[in-house]
Amino acid sequence: MSVAKVTEIIAASPNSFDEAVKNGIARASETLQGITGAWVSEQKVAVENGRITEYRVAMRVTFILAD
Amino acid sequence: MSVAKVTEIIAASPNSFDEAVKNGIARASETLQGITGAWVSEQKVAVENGRITEYRVAMRVTFILAD
Amino acid sequence: MSVAKVTEIIAASPNSFDEAVKNGIARASETLQGITGAWVSEQKVAVENGRITEYRVAMRVTFILAD
Amino acid sequence: MSVAKVTEIIAASPNSFDEAVKNGIARASETLQGITGAWVSEQKVAVENGRITEYRVAMRVTFILAD
Amino acid sequence: MSVAKVTEIIAASPNSFDEAVKNGIARASETLQGITGAWVSEQKVAVENGRITEYRVAMRVTFILAD
Amino acid sequence: MSVAKVTEIIAASPNSFDEAVKNGIARASETLQGITGAWVSEQKVAVENGRITEYRVAMRVTFILAD
Amino acid sequence: MSVAKVTEIIAASPNSFDEAVKNGIARASETLQGITGAWVSEQKVAVENGRITEYRVAMRVTFILAD
Amino acid sequence: MSVAKVTEIIAASPNSFDEAVKNGIARASETLQGITGAWVSEQKVAVENGRITEYRVAMRVTFILAD
Amino acid sequence: MSVAKVTEIIAASPNSFDEAVKNGIARASETLQGITGAWVSEQKVAVENGRITEYRVAMRVTFILAD
Amino acid sequence: MSVAKVTEIIAASPNSFDEAVKNGIARASETLQGITGAWVSEQKVAVENGRITEYRVAMRVTFILAD
Amino acid sequence: MSVAKVTEIIAASPNSFDEAVKNGIARASETLQGITGAWVSEQKVAVENGRITEYRVAMRVTFILAD
Amino acid sequence: MSVAKVTEIIAASPNSFDEAVKNGIARASETLQGITGAWVSEQKVAVENGRITEYRVAMRVTFILAD
Repeated sequence: MSVAKVTEIIAASPNSFDEAVKNGIARASETLQGITGAWVSEQKVAVENGRITEYRVAMRVTFILAD
Repeated sequence: MSVAKVTEIIAASPNSFDEAVKNGIARASETLQGITGAWVSEQKVAVENGRITEYRVAMRVTFILAD
Repeated sequence: MSVAKVTEIIAASPNSFDEAVKNGIARASETLQGITGAWVSEQKVAVENGRITEYRVAMRVTFILAD
Repeated sequence: MSVAKVTEIIAASPNSFDEAVKNGIARASETLQGITGAWVSEQKVAVENGRITEYRVAMRVTFILAD
Repeated sequence: MSVAKVTEIIAASPNSFDEAVKNGIARASETLQGITGAWVSEQKVAVENGRITEYRVAMRVTFILAD
Repeated sequence: MSVAKVTEIIAASPNSFDEAVKNGIARASETLQGITGAWVSEQKVAVENGRITEYRVAMRVTFILAD
Repeated sequence: MSVAKVTEIIAASPNSFDEAVKNGIARASETLQGITGAWVSEQKVAVENGRITEYRVAMRVTFILAD
Repeated sequence: MSVAKVTEIIAASPNSFDEAVKNGIARASETLQGITGAWVSEQKVAVENGRITEYRVAMRVTFILAD
Repeated sequence: MSVAKVTEIIAASPNSFDEAVKNGIARASETLQGITGAWVSEQKVAVENGRITEYRVAMRVTFILAD
Repeated sequence: MSVAKVTEIIAASPNSFDEAVKNGIARASETLQGITGAWVSEQKVAVENGRITEYRVAMRVTFILAD
Repeated sequence: MSVAKVTEIIAASPNSFDEAVKNGIARASETLQGITGAWVSEQKVAVENGRITEYRVAMRVTFILAD
Repeated sequence: MSVAKVTEIIAASPNSFDEAVKNGIARASETLQGITGAWVSEQKVAVENGRITEYRVAMRVTFILAD
C-alpha cells in the first residue's frame, strides 16, 4: 500500500510567481524522488526602493514513499 | 431583485496559473450566462519526473441568475 | 526599536495577477516610504461577456515606520 | 436514503440584511424544491456617496434531492 | 483576579436575527450571572415551503465568574 | 482542456460515517457522470434518547465536465 | 490604474446590527472619500444586567485611492 | 422559545473512530438531557510501539435547555 | 472508557501572558477536578494612556470527567 | 528536554478510513522511531465508475526526537 | 456614537514576546491617541547561528476615533 | 536560487513559553543548518494537580537548503 509524504518549502524568483514555483519543484526534485504535485499555500513579494525584488511562494510538495 | 449564484470549478493549463484561470472562465461561459467574476481559492501543480505538467486552479465563479 | 505597519490594498491589471501585484506596489510606493514586502491574500478576476477584463489582488503591504 | 444538496447564492436588498436573506430564499424557491434551510456565510454593504445602497448576503442553501 | 467563562448557545426567533440574539441573552440570563457580552458565530435560517420559519444564531456568551 | 466541477452534498447512514460517504457517492452517481472523488468536509451525528440515529457527512464531490 | 485601500473599523448602535453598520459607514465617510463598500467581519453584543446595551460590528471598509 | 447549548467533549475507543463517537454520546447522555446531535471537530490516534492504542474524537454536543 | 470535557475561560494578569495563563489554571482548579491541560487560543492586551494595564488570554481547558 | 517532530503523510486503503489511518501509522513506523500519535487533517475518497476505489487520509504524525 | 479603528503593526524585541508587545504599544502611542487594546495575531522568532536574535509579534491595535 | 524548507516541531519547558521556544530552536540547531526563524503556531500547558507542569509550543522552523 503506497504512502505519500508532504513537505513544505519556500522558493523564490526575481521574475514571477510561476517561476518561483518552477524553481521550488526543480530544487526539491534534486533530493526527493517521486514528486507528484504541490499546493501553493502562500504568495509574497519582497520590495526594495518601491520595486519588487523577489517573488516568493510557500508550497506543500507531495511525493510517494518507496516501499 | 437580482440574485447571483456561485459555482466551483477546477481548471488547468500546461503553461501557467493565469492560463488555467482563463481556460476555466472560457469553459464555464459555454454553459453559464451572466458570469461577473471568479475567486481563485486554490493553486496546485501536477509534477512528473521533476517537471510541472499542469497548473491547476480551483475557482468560485459568480453569475447572475436571470429573473 | 523599529516597528512596521501593515496596510491592505486592492490592485488590478487588465493583463495578469503578477502585473496587478506590481501596480499595487507601485501605487503604494507613491505615498508610503520603507515598504519591505507584501503578502497576496486574495486573487479574483472580473468577467464580462465571457472574457476576463481585470485581474485583482488583495495585498497586505508591510512598511517600516520611521522613528 | 435521502441526500441533500448545498448551493451557494448571493442575494441583496436595499433595506436590510434580513430582507436580503428573505429575497435569496424567495428567489431560490422558484427553481429549487425541498429547501430546508440556509447558512449566511458573508455580509457586505455597497456604498455610494457615503450611503448604503445595498445589503448583500452570501448564503449556502440546503435542499433535499428527490429520490 | 477575575476570570470569565465562555459558553456557547444556539437561540432562535421566528422574526429576525436580532431577536434571536435577544432571546438567547434573555434565556442565558436566567441561569448565568454576570454576562458581559456575546459574539455571534453563526447565522442560519430554517425554511419550509419556501418561507423562513426560524432565524437561528450560535453565540459565544461571556460571563464573569464570581470569586 | 478538461474542466472539473465541484458540488456539495450531505449524505447519511444509520450505521456509520463510511456508509454515509458510500450512500452519497451512490446517489450522486445517479445524476452526475465522471465523478473522480470527494472530500469529506463535515461529520455529524443526530441523536435521539441518548442514541445515535444517523451519521451525516457533508462532501464536496468532484466530476469532470464533458467537453 | 486605480487602487483601493481597505481599513478596519468597529462601530456600534444601541438598537441593532444594521444600525451599527450604518453608523460605521457614516463616520468613515466623514474622513474617507470614495468608499465603495464594506464587509462585516464580526458581530458582538455588550450586555449589562441581562440586557443588550450595544450592538457592535467590525467592518473592513474599501475605498478608492485618488490618483 | 427553546434555546440549545453546545458543549465540547473528547471521547475515545481502542477500536475505531465511530465507536469513540458512540462512547462520547453515551457518556454525555448520563448527565445531559435532550441531546439532539454532535459535530466531530477533531480525529486523532494515540500510538505506542507502532500500533494504534486509542482513537480519539473531539465533539461539539448540542442539547436543548429545558425551559 | 474515560471522557474529557473542554471548557473555555478568559483569564488576566497585570504583568504577563504567562501569569494570565497561571491565574486561569489556578481559578479553574478551584471548581474543576482532573484538569490535564489547556490550549491558549487568544492573547490580548488592554491599554490605557499608552500603557498595558492587563494581559488577557482565552484558554480551552481540558479536564477528565469522573465516571 | 525532549522535543517532538511533526511530519505529514497521506495514506490510503481500499476498504475504510480507519484502515487508511492504520496503514499510514504502519508505514511511518518502519522509518520513524518514537511515534506517539497522529491527527487526521483530511479525508477523501477516490471514485471510479460510481464506486469508491480508495479511502485517503492526510495525517500529521508526531514522534519524539532521540536526544 | 463613537467608532474605533483597527490598525496592524509588527513589533520586535531582542528579549521576549511580552517586551515586543510592549514596544509595539509604546511606538503606536506616539502617533495614535485613544488606544484601548491590541490582539496578538502572530508570534515569530528570528534566528542566527542557532540563537534567537529577535522576538516579533504582529498585533491588531484598536483605538477610538475622536468625533 | 536558494530554497528554504519548513519543518514543524513541538518543544517544551517547565518554566515559560519563551523558554520552550528557545529549547526548540536549540534542539533543532543540533541537526539543522541555516535556521533563519520560526513561527509559533500553538501554545499549550500541561497541568497536574492544579499546577502547570509544562509549557509546550508547536513551531514551524524555516531553514535554508544548501545548494
